[in-house]
Amino acid sequence: MAPPEETRTAVIDLGSNTFRLVVFAAAGRRWWKRVDEIYEPVRISAGMGPSGELQPAPMERALGAIDVFAHFCRAAGVDEVRAVATSAIREATNRDAFLARARARSGLDIDVLSRTAEAFYGYVAAVNSTTLADGVVLDIGGGSMQLTHVVGRASREVESWRMGAVRMTERFLPDERASKKQLRALTDHVARKLAEAPWLAEIGDAGRLVGLGGSVRTLAVAAEKAADMPSFGVQGFALERGALDELIAELAALPAPERRRVPGIKPERSDLILAAAVVIQGVMEAGGFDALEVTEAGLREGIFLATQLAPADPPLVPDVRGASVRNLAAQYDADERHAQHVAGLALSMFDSLAAAGLHPGDPEERDLLWAAGLLHDIGTTVDYDDHHRHSRYLILNAGLPGFTPREVALIGQIARYHRKGTPAMGDLKPLMVKGDQELLDRCSALLRVAEQLERARDQTVHAARVEVENGRVRLALVADEEVPVARWAAERQSDVFERAFGRTLEIAEVKA
Amino acid sequence: MAPPEETRTAVIDLGSNTFRLVVFAAAGRRWWKRVDEIYEPVRISAGMGPSGELQPAPMERALGAIDVFAHFCRAAGVDEVRAVATSAIREATNRDAFLARARARSGLDIDVLSRTAEAFYGYVAAVNSTTLADGVVLDIGGGSMQLTHVVGRASREVESWRMGAVRMTERFLPDERASKKQLRALTDHVARKLAEAPWLAEIGDAGRLVGLGGSVRTLAVAAEKAADMPSFGVQGFALERGALDELIAELAALPAPERRRVPGIKPERSDLILAAAVVIQGVMEAGGFDALEVTEAGLREGIFLATQLAPADPPLVPDVRGASVRNLAAQYDADERHAQHVAGLALSMFDSLAAAGLHPGDPEERDLLWAAGLLHDIGTTVDYDDHHRHSRYLILNAGLPGFTPREVALIGQIARYHRKGTPAMGDLKPLMVKGDQELLDRCSALLRVAEQLERARDQTVHAARVEVENGRVRLALVADEEVPVARWAAERQSDVFERAFGRTLEIAEVKA
Repeated sequence: MAPPEETRTAVIDLGSNTFRLVVFAAAGRRWWKRVDEIYEPVRISAGMGPSGELQPAPMERALGAIDVFAHFCRAAGVDEVRAVATSAIREATNRDAFLARARARSGLDIDVLSRTAEAFYGYVAAVNSTTLADGVVLDIGGGSMQLTHVVGRASREVESWRMGAVRMTERFLPDERASKKQLRALTDHVARKLAEAPWLAEIGDAGRLVGLGGSVRTLAVAAEKAADMPSFGVQGFALERGALDELIAELAALPAPERRRVPGIKPERSDLILAAAVVIQGVMEAGGFDALEVTEAGLREGIFLATQLAPADPPLVPDVRGASVRNLAAQYDADERHAQHVAGLALSMFDSLAAAGLHPGDPEERDLLWAAGLLHDIGTTVDYDDHHRHSRYLILNAGLPGFTPREVALIGQIARYHRKGTPAMGDLKPLMVKGDQELLDRCSALLRVAEQLERARDQTVHAARVEVENGRVRLALVADEEVPVARWAAERQSDVFERAFGRTLEIAEVKA
Repeated sequence: MAPPEETRTAVIDLGSNTFRLVVFAAAGRRWWKRVDEIYEPVRISAGMGPSGELQPAPMERALGAIDVFAHFCRAAGVDEVRAVATSAIREATNRDAFLARARARSGLDIDVLSRTAEAFYGYVAAVNSTTLADGVVLDIGGGSMQLTHVVGRASREVESWRMGAVRMTERFLPDERASKKQLRALTDHVARKLAEAPWLAEIGDAGRLVGLGGSVRTLAVAAEKAADMPSFGVQGFALERGALDELIAELAALPAPERRRVPGIKPERSDLILAAAVVIQGVMEAGGFDALEVTEAGLREGIFLATQLAPADPPLVPDVRGASVRNLAAQYDADERHAQHVAGLALSMFDSLAAAGLHPGDPEERDLLWAAGLLHDIGTTVDYDDHHRHSRYLILNAGLPGFTPREVALIGQIARYHRKGTPAMGDLKPLMVKGDQELLDRCSALLRVAEQLERARDQTVHAARVEVENGRVRLALVADEEVPVARWAAERQSDVFERAFGRTLEIAEVKA
């Protein structure tokens, strides 16, 4: 089968703060990824005030940027363009005149998203980049803040408030220093507004909160740094309530221009981040959430995915964790049949050893082993030498939506130890929880034996039957022919196996 | 044009110490790389002694390994196999009986390389992975040591001596501790033998020494560590005579099993490295060389390249630096026309600004700028976010034969700063020499402006004409149509340009 043609979709997002163009490439449903991005800090809502009218200077900046974006799409060979505007333009009294000028100048049709549509795309991004099934999606931009109530992965209630970071800053925290009184007024305003969504208070303990948008990501980076955690992005990071409260206290104590001194707070967010943090705190308070789970996907990914998954309605990837592992694997040249066969052999040994009582057989651990199996060789794209280290680098840096940073770290380390060395977490240790060293030992050992059984990459070892007798594990290799390479290679892994399972490993061959 | 078919060549190298199988993949002459490797520490020459006969136990180990290798080649779908044996087997009195047994058991035809052929492939590896034109190639293995005299990139004299690391250790340094007397005896032996090659003493100051083989690489790693240099491989590293002398003193002071305590010395080389170092020292002394330039390529790469470049005789890549940059660029999915166009724009600005007297216009700097231009986007394979950092990672880790570590570091840093940030060497600083910060500032600025002129990746900006007037540089963009994206994007780089060239940058458009 010929590989599917690569197509490019541009999503243009005219936000209250920044105008942004993102290009997504996809090969059918095999893989997709972001491949280009340009942006301009237009601040179109600057100086709008109570009149609700876009001002001449910001409008000129906006039209210039839109023109550049339109040229970019034509020049860069994009197959499809989706341009949307959100709250600042949506609510401007002179929006129609502005849109007409934008169309005349650039030829672009701009779709002004309703509050509901905007929230919907945020919801699509969140449920396709996390394992959220029941709870709330929070999306905070410059102009507005949306909450979507999610039940069984479906969107139930949707609410949108004009409580974006720019709006709340201008209204409640306009001065360099935020007084206690001002902060209290903002907190009260948020609480009062949120009371309009009574379902929020009724979410209960089982419900999770997933957040998206630049402010959420910035706060997550700051919390990671405050906790001195190794960071390779904030996808899946859990921003805990206590950590958010501490950040707010730290930010509020500083004048706005100096908030950038808090590690992780970028200069361009320095003046808006405090208001955003207080709004998020209000949502956590109102819904009784202990943590906000962060996703790096947002409105733009939501729009792209809705297009990509159409006509599915709602546009849901059936298995987020599986899809993101397969998506990453498919982006590399690695030998897919080999990787799948290795993953299959590793999982079958995992299951047999669990059935024999040699380990707990935790399903989450099984997921990680499978993911590492599929991804163990992607590093060969960088260089054959040290490709286990390169696989780890690629896994950590590309990220795996649906997994927490700890889980991604474990997948990376399992892949890193698929050839040699004594499994350890190294500089990712701060992410570990109790039992992770044993998990890493088990998964590395199984992946390593499976890799060696598939050393010639020809799938001749169909299966490896596990027989546990007293102090040893006998692995019977099932194949149609003799498999001296597999046997030779797998025998070298007895030490790592013994370390993980406390049994010696013996390899035998049996005819299929 | 359809991309050339990918072919796989296995080179099996039956050395005195280790048997090794390496698989090379190539797509015509577009790119090649190592994609797989298995090895077995057979030590076939163990216990041979003066009788010169391969002993039963090592022979059995050897036959077992050969059998596994042959199975591997059949199973792994290799298109072509080249199996060679070097000095231990070549010089064994029972070699024919051994080869017949190997053929009967594995079906492999093993080509026993003559001393001259062995040296020739080492020479092919060296001249195609370094810029050596005149000098000597040194190749030291377990059994023998070869020197090839190179003049105008051609091989002139070739000599081979039975002075490999295993042989010299067994004969001169058999004890746990190396006495001064033993070391002196080895040094004298080497000097006496090298006198057989009178051309060595006549090389003169212009001649360079390039070394290959596992012992050479190990000593280079140890020297890098001793000098506290950042390391991403030893390709192109210059091991200086003084550093080698110090390593020898350090190694000789330790009993053999403890030599692994010297940072960089792997346990499996602990007992052989001292003899190898003394032999290399003897060559440097005899030829009056100040430094040994290290290449990671060796016999196996030489055999592969000779096959790949056939029928060229001698098999020489015309431009090693250019070929290795193009080879790396071609391995990634990045947009080639874009990369070439960016490199072209950057070089044309480089030349014009040099002609206007704004910088020295050093040809080596120009090479680095070109290389960074061709490679600046390869990191998009990892992830669009931070792809400038990923490009740097890929460049440093894949390596670029023909460039020194300092040059590779500079190429990596130029690519790393092709989008944003203030150019700096970061943790690669110890590799810098005087003037490198200015070089990095200039090249990063030019690459960044060129990248922005090609921001839409459509090659509409044909050229950028540089006009220098008083305190400013005017860049006239030559295009068939309006290029608002290029102009918009390039204007953002005026600060980095000003920092590098001390002139303000102004962008104008002119019709082609």
